[in-house]
Amino acid sequence: KSYNFFPSCSKFLYSIRCLPRFSSRLPYRHVSASIKAKPSSEVRKKKHSSSESDDKLAALRELFLRSDINVDAYIIPSQDAHQSEFIAECYSRRAYISGFTGSAGTAVVTKDKAALWTDGRYFLQAEKQLTSSWILMRSGTLGVPTTSEWLNNVLVPGSRIGIDPFLFSSDSAEELKEAISVKNHELVYLYDLNLVDEIWKESRPKPPSNLARIHDIKYAGVDVPSKLASLRSELKTAGSSAIVISVLDEIAWLLNLRGSDVPHSPVVYAYLVVGLEGAKLFIDDIKIGPEVRQHLKNAGVEIRAYEDILSEISSLARRGDSLWFDSSSVSAAIVNTYKSACGMNSGLTPVYKSSPVSITKAVKNEAELEGMRNAHLRDAAALAQFWAWLEEQISNGIVLTEVDVAAKLVQFRSRQDGFLGSSFDTISASGANGAIIHYKPEPDSCSIVEADELFLLDSGAQYVDGTTDVTRTVHFGQPASWQKECFTRVLKGHIALDEAVFPENSPGFVLDAFARSSLWKIGLDYRHGTGHGVGAALNVHEGPQSISFRYGNVTPLLKGMVVSNEPGYYEDHAFGIRIENLVYVKEVKTEYRFGGAEYLGFEKLTFVPIQTKLVDVSLLSPMEIDWLNDYHYQVWDKVT
Amino acid sequence: KSYNFFPSCSKFLYSIRCLPRFSSRLPYRHVSASIKAKPSSEVRKKKHSSSESDDKLAALRELFLRSDINVDAYIIPSQDAHQSEFIAECYSRRAYISGFTGSAGTAVVTKDKAALWTDGRYFLQAEKQLTSSWILMRSGTLGVPTTSEWLNNVLVPGSRIGIDPFLFSSDSAEELKEAISVKNHELVYLYDLNLVDEIWKESRPKPPSNLARIHDIKYAGVDVPSKLASLRSELKTAGSSAIVISVLDEIAWLLNLRGSDVPHSPVVYAYLVVGLEGAKLFIDDIKIGPEVRQHLKNAGVEIRAYEDILSEISSLARRGDSLWFDSSSVSAAIVNTYKSACGMNSGLTPVYKSSPVSITKAVKNEAELEGMRNAHLRDAAALAQFWAWLEEQISNGIVLTEVDVAAKLVQFRSRQDGFLGSSFDTISASGANGAIIHYKPEPDSCSIVEADELFLLDSGAQYVDGTTDVTRTVHFGQPASWQKECFTRVLKGHIALDEAVFPENSPGFVLDAFARSSLWKIGLDYRHGTGHGVGAALNVHEGPQSISFRYGNVTPLLKGMVVSNEPGYYEDHAFGIRIENLVYVKEVKTEYRFGGAEYLGFEKLTFVPIQTKLVDVSLLSPMEIDWLNDYHYQVWDKVT
Repeated sequence: KSYNFFPSCSKFLYSIRCLPRFSSRLPYRHVSASIKAKPSSEVRKKKHSSSESDDKLAALRELFLRSDINVDAYIIPSQDAHQSEFIAECYSRRAYISGFTGSAGTAVVTKDKAALWTDGRYFLQAEKQLTSSWILMRSGTLGVPTTSEWLNNVLVPGSRIGIDPFLFSSDSAEELKEAISVKNHELVYLYDLNLVDEIWKESRPKPPSNLARIHDIKYAGVDVPSKLASLRSELKTAGSSAIVISVLDEIAWLLNLRGSDVPHSPVVYAYLVVGLEGAKLFIDDIKIGPEVRQHLKNAGVEIRAYEDILSEISSLARRGDSLWFDSSSVSAAIVNTYKSACGMNSGLTPVYKSSPVSITKAVKNEAELEGMRNAHLRDAAALAQFWAWLEEQISNGIVLTEVDVAAKLVQFRSRQDGFLGSSFDTISASGANGAIIHYKPEPDSCSIVEADELFLLDSGAQYVDGTTDVTRTVHFGQPASWQKECFTRVLKGHIALDEAVFPENSPGFVLDAFARSSLWKIGLDYRHGTGHGVGAALNVHEGPQSISFRYGNVTPLLKGMVVSNEPGYYEDHAFGIRIENLVYVKEVKTEYRFGGAEYLGFEKLTFVPIQTKLVDVSLLSPMEIDWLNDYHYQVWDKVT
Repeated sequence: KSYNFFPSCSKFLYSIRCLPRFSSRLPYRHVSASIKAKPSSEVRKKKHSSSESDDKLAALRELFLRSDINVDAYIIPSQDAHQSEFIAECYSRRAYISGFTGSAGTAVVTKDKAALWTDGRYFLQAEKQLTSSWILMRSGTLGVPTTSEWLNNVLVPGSRIGIDPFLFSSDSAEELKEAISVKNHELVYLYDLNLVDEIWKESRPKPPSNLARIHDIKYAGVDVPSKLASLRSELKTAGSSAIVISVLDEIAWLLNLRGSDVPHSPVVYAYLVVGLEGAKLFIDDIKIGPEVRQHLKNAGVEIRAYEDILSEISSLARRGDSLWFDSSSVSAAIVNTYKSACGMNSGLTPVYKSSPVSITKAVKNEAELEGMRNAHLRDAAALAQFWAWLEEQISNGIVLTEVDVAAKLVQFRSRQDGFLGSSFDTISASGANGAIIHYKPEPDSCSIVEADELFLLDSGAQYVDGTTDVTRTVHFGQPASWQKECFTRVLKGHIALDEAVFPENSPGFVLDAFARSSLWKIGLDYRHGTGHGVGAALNVHEGPQSISFRYGNVTPLLKGMVVSNEPGYYEDHAFGIRIENLVYVKEVKTEYRFGGAEYLGFEKLTFVPIQTKLVDVSLLSPMEIDWLNDYHYQVWDKVT
């Protein structure tokens, strides 16, 4: 197995829009997904001229020679310092230096070469966007080296390879360090400056500075002191005196704070250190208004400058605090600062464990579920209006592009109370575009929504009280019987999963085959997981649970977790089908409880009609027909 | 997780009759099963008097003091030297020393204490059979220490704990050694004598001495030179110059040899060393007749004395041979002998990998499948006669015990061509006995087969050409509607698994939920796996594949593998239901082949009617009704 340079994306292993880097079904091993960052649309729009690109590379290489830098190569990943899925524009360094704006990619610049790694989804885009100064490395293609293999080949042994240690999780930096040690290369942590920022200069967008806001207790359900108290009892159990949290949605959830620092996710850039007594939030003070200041003060949370995180880590180490790090998310900068400072305090070792906030956040309380239910009903109302509008437009022969349609959808949603924005880039895909699982229509290249093609629409919204994510596939004309068969088999999988009852402690992959079984019968399948976690008025992708054939993830599905149910089928160059609802895990009052176990099932959150025109009723069992009728009855009942 | 002293039983993790030691559903971890040895009925029958037991303990403790032994404790496991499921009487040392004849248990004797560990299935039996000299350790019960924890408690630090290193796999001995090192105890390998044998003396049964026989090429399909050639190419790939095989069915399969050394499995006690050029079989020469001698000679296999295995290992090490061991099955005696002898030949290290024979043996060739099909048809004929006979007896009011019925079944089977014996102890269980998953009726305590109770019969046979294993549950009177519901849900699970289609490279546990889903809907489940591998005219339990909720086993189901399909439901103190067929994995010609994958499914081997009286037809879908009708049509067609 070749070394995977990309920091792992364990939180979003199974998201469709965060497709892991694999091209065929890998049944044994969990494949680290690697794709996180989405460059902002601003960066995306820019055209990159050849000379501009060469100037940047020249400037970067000049920096290599500076005595305080002194490196032979520099690696520029997609990530921000918090391993976020969506990142602020000012952190889109890889896009800036390379000109390649796809969501996944790593740039590596040596003194005489520049190479960019990306996966199969982006080969065409990268070919277009990269200048001749860049070598395109088609990851996953036979014979293409990994980043570290390439560095081991092109550099003379004993070279110095620089990274910004904030942009690598501790785990991924350690992995990289080991891989390049084969050729005695040294991994140089450049704490003090990011080389790309250094050449980006004035043109670099400013870091976000919008005000953070309080997430109302009526939506959060649990106040901050209670959440911190539970976390502290976990610290005690683990024998730690403090935990460092850098994942933005964990901080937002713990502090009942929301923000607008990045697209699609209502989070603020910050670090949080929670000790047995106090807690410190490291954040740009400009984002803190008087109410939030009071809110944090009430919870005993002190405010510190974002930049002071490392000095805090050092002083905790010197004080003898035993810190808990989730080394899959906390940066190499933080972990290494702690380890160095501990050197003086021998006997002190960090606790490396996954963050306890991740699972607590995933299990929604009643207030969070209530918010999710309400947000989904308003979202359903907007979608009902949208679909009625679209059907009318198409039947009237109005020509609309995929982008037009996506924009109109936002318009309908924005009329709903508490709407904040979309929860990810809408996948509005007509015909063959539907088969591109990560498709994002662009104004200058997108298709017309054709009446005689399948149309796949995967979209979601952020509301003050909840987060939505829904996919429907429709046909405005006469679908082919083959398309109906595929749609119906996807629907059968969707129903089988929706209706599943399972004993507590079952991880999601136990259920994954239910969603595929009907497709398997005729030799069909889909190359993505069936379900991902969703935050409550938070990130549209969250872990740790999932429903997927990649059975590395043994997190059980727990009561209160929200997951998507989204089987699909994709025929290259032809069409794509996906039917996605969000559901939450609930106890099912079964007649019996064998072995004293609790039995669990799903409750639907999404109430949007499924196009019956695409259903081949002869393939459905009476139970499945009942399910569909009952669902539509509920949609009518709740949404009107 | 507490240390599991029992050598693991990885090959039979999912067998019903080899039930792993766990009492509730453990979803995350693969639980090592620990139960292997079945004491012979001879040993089982003996009554153990108190003084007899004390005499044995006294004699054993006297041996502790001998200068060539010098130990403070001695551990007596159930196993033979080959980790066999069924063992010869002369190796039933734990039963001899303790008086406890259950299939699972470990005896530990110190200078002043004696303790026996067994699991929940045997608490009552052990209480009856152990004298007051013994402490019964109820494994899996709160507060009960593991064997090593107990030894760490009762012995003064730095004690010497003796074992027979032939009776522990290398892995389990290493585990034990580490666990007792906490108290600086030393694990002492007594190579030269087994202390129990030493006191057993003349009364110890003689080792088996029946002739081995050739497994006809028309059943084996592949000749021995070809099998050895494939194995040798695996050796070359692994960089080994020889492999040591101690698992008896692997030896039997590789050499197309069969025997009758142990109950139920047609194997002979032997070790096999296959080098790049030659091969040596270590076996009691008395078992080799002229034909087998010639057969082995033709394949280039030399015969050596069984006892010479260790001296061969030493000389291979001295010669510089790099040996391949499956350390989960090869004994500590063998691995340690090699390691010590290598000491003189530095740079030589063993290759520890699972045996390549295991998977090759599991994937049946066409001749083996043909033999299995034919054996199953003859077996089905015997079962048809048997069930007709039994139904008549019961309807005539004839009183029959569970043992009578099991004996009559053997009689019917023995009339079939090529019958050799039963493939395991028949589980003939009326009423509440059916809920005891490992139930074995004994003449002096078994029940009457009642007309108004459910009757569960799980049995199998060895034929020259194949091995069978089938379970049917019937009712001779009027089953309660609740029993019918349970039976029907078990049947639905059986059908769902039988009809499953799945992409190649899927491990069995992906399918396990199909068999449970219908029970889960009403909160029911069963505490055993759904399927185990079965040998072709070999062991009724074989690995490495399985179909189970214990997803540690990622072996894919491959074309040609034979597995059981045996969902069940058990209501304590009331009844048990199980419906078991053997099936083999075949390619399914699906209309499509998404991603170029091959799609697989199952073909039935077992053709024995399923009692329709127990089916609640209202719970079946039309497809399931068709399945049942079609199955019975096939049974009629093939078996008449």
